[in-house]
Amino acid sequence: MLVVMDAHVTPEQVRAVCDKIEPLGCRAHQIAAAQRTAISIAGNCGAAEIATLKEVPGVKDVVPVSKAYELVSREVKPDDTTIYFPNSKATIGGRELAIVAGPCAVENRDQAFAIAKCVQRAGAQFFRGGAYKPRSSPYSFQGLGLEGLKILAEIRERFGLRIITEAIDHESLELVEEYADVIQIGARNMHNYSLLKRAGRSPKPVLLKRGMAATLEEFLMAAEYIMSEGNYNVILCERGVRTFSDHTRFTLDLNIVPAVQRLSHLPIIVDPSHGTGRRHMVIALSRAAVAAGADGLIVEVHTDPDNALSDGIQSLFPEQFEELMSDVRQIGAVVGRNLRAGPGSAIWK
Amino acid sequence: MLVVMDAHVTPEQVRAVCDKIEPLGCRAHQIAAAQRTAISIAGNCGAAEIATLKEVPGVKDVVPVSKAYELVSREVKPDDTTIYFPNSKATIGGRELAIVAGPCAVENRDQAFAIAKCVQRAGAQFFRGGAYKPRSSPYSFQGLGLEGLKILAEIRERFGLRIITEAIDHESLELVEEYADVIQIGARNMHNYSLLKRAGRSPKPVLLKRGMAATLEEFLMAAEYIMSEGNYNVILCERGVRTFSDHTRFTLDLNIVPAVQRLSHLPIIVDPSHGTGRRHMVIALSRAAVAAGADGLIVEVHTDPDNALSDGIQSLFPEQFEELMSDVRQIGAVVGRNLRAGPGSAIWK
Amino acid sequence: MLVVMDAHVTPEQVRAVCDKIEPLGCRAHQIAAAQRTAISIAGNCGAAEIATLKEVPGVKDVVPVSKAYELVSREVKPDDTTIYFPNSKATIGGRELAIVAGPCAVENRDQAFAIAKCVQRAGAQFFRGGAYKPRSSPYSFQGLGLEGLKILAEIRERFGLRIITEAIDHESLELVEEYADVIQIGARNMHNYSLLKRAGRSPKPVLLKRGMAATLEEFLMAAEYIMSEGNYNVILCERGVRTFSDHTRFTLDLNIVPAVQRLSHLPIIVDPSHGTGRRHMVIALSRAAVAAGADGLIVEVHTDPDNALSDGIQSLFPEQFEELMSDVRQIGAVVGRNLRAGPGSAIWK
Amino acid sequence: MLVVMDAHVTPEQVRAVCDKIEPLGCRAHQIAAAQRTAISIAGNCGAAEIATLKEVPGVKDVVPVSKAYELVSREVKPDDTTIYFPNSKATIGGRELAIVAGPCAVENRDQAFAIAKCVQRAGAQFFRGGAYKPRSSPYSFQGLGLEGLKILAEIRERFGLRIITEAIDHESLELVEEYADVIQIGARNMHNYSLLKRAGRSPKPVLLKRGMAATLEEFLMAAEYIMSEGNYNVILCERGVRTFSDHTRFTLDLNIVPAVQRLSHLPIIVDPSHGTGRRHMVIALSRAAVAAGADGLIVEVHTDPDNALSDGIQSLFPEQFEELMSDVRQIGAVVGRNLRAGPGSAIWK
Repeated sequence: MLVVMDAHVTPEQVRAVCDKIEPLGCRAHQIAAAQRTAISIAGNCGAAEIATLKEVPGVKDVVPVSKAYELVSREVKPDDTTIYFPNSKATIGGRELAIVAGPCAVENRDQAFAIAKCVQRAGAQFFRGGAYKPRSSPYSFQGLGLEGLKILAEIRERFGLRIITEAIDHESLELVEEYADVIQIGARNMHNYSLLKRAGRSPKPVLLKRGMAATLEEFLMAAEYIMSEGNYNVILCERGVRTFSDHTRFTLDLNIVPAVQRLSHLPIIVDPSHGTGRRHMVIALSRAAVAAGADGLIVEVHTDPDNALSDGIQSLFPEQFEELMSDVRQIGAVVGRNLRAGPGSAIWK
Repeated sequence: MLVVMDAHVTPEQVRAVCDKIEPLGCRAHQIAAAQRTAISIAGNCGAAEIATLKEVPGVKDVVPVSKAYELVSREVKPDDTTIYFPNSKATIGGRELAIVAGPCAVENRDQAFAIAKCVQRAGAQFFRGGAYKPRSSPYSFQGLGLEGLKILAEIRERFGLRIITEAIDHESLELVEEYADVIQIGARNMHNYSLLKRAGRSPKPVLLKRGMAATLEEFLMAAEYIMSEGNYNVILCERGVRTFSDHTRFTLDLNIVPAVQRLSHLPIIVDPSHGTGRRHMVIALSRAAVAAGADGLIVEVHTDPDNALSDGIQSLFPEQFEELMSDVRQIGAVVGRNLRAGPGSAIWK
Repeated sequence: MLVVMDAHVTPEQVRAVCDKIEPLGCRAHQIAAAQRTAISIAGNCGAAEIATLKEVPGVKDVVPVSKAYELVSREVKPDDTTIYFPNSKATIGGRELAIVAGPCAVENRDQAFAIAKCVQRAGAQFFRGGAYKPRSSPYSFQGLGLEGLKILAEIRERFGLRIITEAIDHESLELVEEYADVIQIGARNMHNYSLLKRAGRSPKPVLLKRGMAATLEEFLMAAEYIMSEGNYNVILCERGVRTFSDHTRFTLDLNIVPAVQRLSHLPIIVDPSHGTGRRHMVIALSRAAVAAGADGLIVEVHTDPDNALSDGIQSLFPEQFEELMSDVRQIGAVVGRNLRAGPGSAIWK
Repeated sequence: MLVVMDAHVTPEQVRAVCDKIEPLGCRAHQIAAAQRTAISIAGNCGAAEIATLKEVPGVKDVVPVSKAYELVSREVKPDDTTIYFPNSKATIGGRELAIVAGPCAVENRDQAFAIAKCVQRAGAQFFRGGAYKPRSSPYSFQGLGLEGLKILAEIRERFGLRIITEAIDHESLELVEEYADVIQIGARNMHNYSLLKRAGRSPKPVLLKRGMAATLEEFLMAAEYIMSEGNYNVILCERGVRTFSDHTRFTLDLNIVPAVQRLSHLPIIVDPSHGTGRRHMVIALSRAAVAAGADGLIVEVHTDPDNALSDGIQSLFPEQFEELMSDVRQIGAVVGRNLRAGPGSAIWK
């Protein structure tokens, strides 16, 4: 349910609407857009009470929302969402392409620094690297944990890159939100609603990966879980789905990019590294993702992929990543996107 | 890696092997079977150290395990696992079929008691009912929580049924293990390794549902996560997977029953209610599951499905469930299974 | 569109309706059922012309059909279809289970006779064996062709088994309809509408296998293609679909059995050999198929599977097939089905 | 098996090798490439006989081929295949992008001419339009047949466009090869091996669409069926596969583009119209296909999509197609491809 306010609404009038809604057990979310101010009422309020809202001063209209999700929807917020980062020119969403690069896992300080240096120079604005790794086997390397997070925080200081890293439970989320700039919820946890709610109470933006068998609606509902708790800074990420196809590890589904953009105002980026699982496909599918209109890429890069502790066979070599950045800049230009130079790139100065 | 011990091994000799393994950072799991005593070494020990184990007194052989999972595997434990419950004749695994029935969610005390009475009378030994519901929408009914668990505990007292209910995070698991007999990990959390590890440290058996896009190996690895922490009482559950097929909510994959039984000693039961999502298919697929060799069924039953707060359209009416129990008893007999009457059935006394 | 006739309709009245329909470019199919006589109008007639049908003497009502398929539908023909074979007690559909067994391909006369003898003795009424094999590789064994058909015809003479074999194009269909009792259209040709139409003009019954990615509706529409040409003797067959699951060659989808039975009057049998592709699963899934309500089974049996020219690893040994027949007889009895002894079984005399 | 010849091999020496192979029941295919002349021996020859080939004058080496397909493989022919058309600058494969556009079906002369005029002016070199339509329902419009082919032939004369249209059986193939420039085998017939073999005996190039559940290997094996009969002019086409995803009609799998290009020398184009089934996605996915490295596009365009007899909702309006051509030209330039102006485009003269 969306309460659309008059053009010259006052903060007091908005407050008055919220005060009427919240005692009903629903939550009011204020949506400030270019064209209008509105209040989304998430949850199941009674029809009768809602009707009385129409009489509150400053209320222009009360309109139903046609989808199961609400805060995620373009009906509620028509304008694209852009996510900003304090003390940084980096953004996600909007005209600028967001490029996230780094190793699958933080293995040690030297490895992480070497890779960070490469991806910064090539123009990435964000660094990825797992400190907590959800692995299929309990006997596989599970990540460096807190030690990994500290290395990531050092990388931010040293290279000016914003840090994106995964949280796998409440405990790790607490630490990730302290050390990183964006909290990643991985594909395996997209249906972990308890974790989504916790992320929804975090002050940090959340990168939400699509579950490996999630429909578009389930994907958007998972984002709604986060937003319904008050964290509106959600970035969606396509990373491949499970199909019968066996020429890729997963089937990267680029079709979801225009599908999301039609229904939602949230930015969506693409992970061709997990999506294909094959190095020789990553460049082709990265180019394709940008051409399809994605808001950015998250790509695995490693200086020594043959000895990586995880996912080496899908990591790009640094020189491949540089070449990719050049292609992406040109393709972006065709589809109305800009690739701002990252903090360390030659073009930056 | 499996350390097979001599036929007349002593507890001291077993202890000596464990003492050699654990300082290496691996964990020793003792596997007592009808034919032999063995010690499974889960984790990545060095080949050199393992070689020295062959010289320890009482050690007959040290053999590699061919699969990524180990404790789950028939190579390590050839005999079928049966799970027993204190002060109860109910079992899961072995010759007896285990029948779990009840509503999707515990809605209130009256509803739960009415359904419990029906399923007990029809011969079920286990009662299901969610107190914590993982729902696609944050605005849907999320379960009664602790209040629901208390109702379930009352049902155990009143009807003699063992209780199976889902935990969705560490917090709810703590409560479920206090109030219930079996902790259910749902399909959406099959890849939530943090929760699996926590369940592995519980004294209660765990019912692990297959993820909606999990391969057989991933399913068994999820069970390995639980067992690697020392909880060997794991029950697997097939509940349908995501495919292109649209005549069912999910595609119930009965093929996995003989596939699991070939590779693993763990019991596997089938959930045709979630697997098909259509009432008129539940009876047919329940019969089929038993004929395929499943160790039991978990079925939704509701006295008033049209007004259920969740999943009503897939719940059986009590009389349908009674009829199903009769069919299952007869089909079970053909495939070498027995359906012991539940605590409240007429046949019981 | 269905024209329902009065209880005491005369053949002349039926003829009069047909004479009105056919000039409109539609085809009239007469449906004689226990409760009523009706005429299905397949195709796109104008609404105006149809309205005038209501005035034709003997017409009780003209009712729309809610599905895209019509002749296949229970709306048009409520009673189950049973298919009879001249000079034989064998049937498909109805109370009797139909068991089809034999090798993947007819390899030579001796092999086919040896297997026919085994399956006849175990109680099968139908013999399967490919003379035309649709193989993924052009370099694989493509079947014996006409020579194979002649061997199959000999088997009918010698063992009293009805013959089911695949046609892969118009040319082979011409020969199959001459030599065999049932024309099989394989999964790879389920969408080959030209072949379906040709089969629809054959006097012989057609066994239609579900395409490996066919939805229920597409499967029924393929049957409609055959029936719309006037051949009403169609047997549906589930044989596994393509999914991400890798523990079977295809995922046998038993859920479709009750789904078909609700929508259609046509018999449906199950092929667990192609559906699983693994010998050790065939028995379990055959039992399950019968328990799920299937009208029969089509199973690969081979006397020397290790040296079979195709699909050996999914073929049962003769003794396994005998054991299966015994299980199937007993499970059939539980679900209201009878397994009539085949022509050569000990019980037959 | 590949017989690699000396650098200065003579036609007589090649002939001598073929003469040795063919009596063995295998077929010799000569592969002339930039770097070498080779002879592929398709089929199953005996190892002993093959060994003797090494002694034939002019033979440099006899090497096994590691894949089940042979003629399709880059091992046998390392250089990309380009397909040329007599009396036309149009090509498929190589540096030039091939753009195929037109309606789903030829509906009548006026519709087809109007659309042809638009796509020609926008720069397409190929015209698509079905005269024989494989439809799910026997009651849907099945195409104009021969009359449609005649209209297509007129379009070639009038607009200079090369014609691509589908054959659905031997009978229609005979006519299509007479009237069109490229014979299309649709997704539903990709496993129709009888039709593939017939297409392999045609002098016209074949556009082979991927089956809706075909693996990469099955797709390449279907091409091998055509090539094994002597027709080496095969164009592959990705058109979406069946998955659980419901935001598109099929899931367009762009991952297969680099996967095919690594294994095969054949050109591969992409059909985003059938692949997505949604007009608003066609432009995004067309751009993405070119960025992923596809050799061309096949796109549905209609001047009056709302009244199209089939697939209107996925057809582009002419002005959208023009815009797409402009994007494609620019993205093509980034990935090393050229979009030659079509016969009627302004740039042409």
